[in-house]
Amino acid sequence: MDILEIISTRRSVREYKKERPSDGDIKSILEAGHWAPSGLNNQPWRFIVIDDNDRKEGLARFTKYDDMIIRAPVSIVILFATTDSYDRDKDMMAMGACIQNMMLEAHSLDIGSCWLGEITNRKEDAAMYLGLDNDLEIVAVLTFGYSNEPITEGWRKPLKDMIIL
Amino acid sequence: MDILEIISTRRSVREYKKERPSDGDIKSILEAGHWAPSGLNNQPWRFIVIDDNDRKEGLARFTKYDDMIIRAPVSIVILFATTDSYDRDKDMMAMGACIQNMMLEAHSLDIGSCWLGEITNRKEDAAMYLGLDNDLEIVAVLTFGYSNEPITEGWRKPLKDMIIL
Repeated sequence: MDILEIISTRRSVREYKKERPSDGDIKSILEAGHWAPSGLNNQPWRFIVIDDNDRKEGLARFTKYDDMIIRAPVSIVILFATTDSYDRDKDMMAMGACIQNMMLEAHSLDIGSCWLGEITNRKEDAAMYLGLDNDLEIVAVLTFGYSNEPITEGWRKPLKDMIIL
Repeated sequence: MDILEIISTRRSVREYKKERPSDGDIKSILEAGHWAPSGLNNQPWRFIVIDDNDRKEGLARFTKYDDMIIRAPVSIVILFATTDSYDRDKDMMAMGACIQNMMLEAHSLDIGSCWLGEITNRKEDAAMYLGLDNDLEIVAVLTFGYSNEPITEGWRKPLKDMIIL
């Protein structure tokens, strides 16, 4: 099956219904992330699933997108395990592949998601709040839930402008 | 449609049949990459499609995986447009999302691929050979073609070990 439609119709979803995606669907999203490729297959990703109000509110304090974390039924904190690192640029690319897998899997299950990178501005404070070991670095938070907003248009530059030579 | 199977059955494919994927399929793979998310929607990726013997041999000189570039019907050089950068870590994650989209789209079309990161050890030499502007940085080469090897087992650590708290 050609999955270009799944890829090209995924959008950032910022308004969610209250209904929580099932544990099975959350597990599928985590599995999808975990099946990402990584250099030397070092699998440098780790995950924290946050779906209780206390931790939502606790985590939300460290980003200006606090409302989204509070409203989303589930957030997943994406961690980079620095002890598994072999090349930071390549590890970050692996982390991006992991995140993209999760958002694509969610979209294929009709679950909306949003990639919040801004929280890294206060990643040390957020890590301290979560009680993380020093070798776990927050690189993003993903919010998940069923969309409660209109489908938006995506926009990209013309593909021909991205092809060199 | 749940795409976890596409995600979890993708493997690095290193041996290819001679048949070249169609121009339409290569375009779909490029579209898939271009539909990746990026911070501020900065779309920092650029692509060079290489399918002629002269450039295959020219590029292959800069990696120890020279045989793969020469044997693969098509290689795509993945470039990071540094003038579009806003945060290198986040840009690298966007590049990884782009690459993963391309490999997933290929796999969904029954086209095998492999992510070659080792070429970045000689990225300046390879960029000079390709005549690239200084603001275009090689981050990977992807090889594409129909698989001519047995399906291999994938391996990941147990998912439960990746979930913290």
